[in-house]
Amino acid sequence: MNGKAGELAIDDPATLAEVTSHVARYEAALMANDFAVLDELFRHSPLTRRFGATEQLYGFEAIAAYRRDRPGGAPPRRILRQSITTYGTDFATADIEFQPIGTDRLGRQTQSWVRTGKGWRVVSAHVSFMSVPD
Amino acid sequence: MNGKAGELAIDDPATLAEVTSHVARYEAALMANDFAVLDELFRHSPLTRRFGATEQLYGFEAIAAYRRDRPGGAPPRRILRQSITTYGTDFATADIEFQPIGTDRLGRQTQSWVRTGKGWRVVSAHVSFMSVPD
Repeated sequence: MNGKAGELAIDDPATLAEVTSHVARYEAALMANDFAVLDELFRHSPLTRRFGATEQLYGFEAIAAYRRDRPGGAPPRRILRQSITTYGTDFATADIEFQPIGTDRLGRQTQSWVRTGKGWRVVSAHVSFMSVPD
Repeated sequence: MNGKAGELAIDDPATLAEVTSHVARYEAALMANDFAVLDELFRHSPLTRRFGATEQLYGFEAIAAYRRDRPGGAPPRRILRQSITTYGTDFATADIEFQPIGTDRLGRQTQSWVRTGKGWRVVSAHVSFMSVPD
């Protein structure tokens, strides 16, 4: 990936397969409240960000602390729709719609993944619930 | 940017300046409800996605139609915090916190930007308001 016109490979199959596997691993770790894997998959940097339904977290340390301060971890949820797109070989977006089990709420999660020297990592994430229009 | 270990340039000054300029241009266009610029800055692809406070939009056409179906465009807003990070020379994330004027609501907007053959474009965006915890 060099940024030249027309050379950006979209959804290169090998890259897409890698990222899809990482997204699945993240989801499993989220449901298991597996801090080790969750921590591994977010980039360890003050620049990493996560906007959650009720919080804005700046930096890996804040994100890791949030997970540990969350009793029981994320509520069980069902994935309703998932779309992953890779741009070149080093960047991807992963967007899902989900429903917490036993609710009628619609959640949305977006993640930006970057291939770092240590592997694929989330650098920015945003989780929210759809607002009911006023 | 080639994905090799340790070679990912974070916040390269020239790249960061370019993306910062584009984010400012997007914000001005959003406030002016300038369809031409808003359309220009989102990648024209079925893969482009935008999750808004009350909608999930898949594909550029759905996003463009949404803007035209929104009377008066986005409500005036004040940026409270903005953070932009570039990864290599072809990818960036732009996250802001904002407040609609005259409200006490906290909005959050995340965008993933990719340098395409036509210039920098948003490929994934997520806008939401912070939920009040139950």
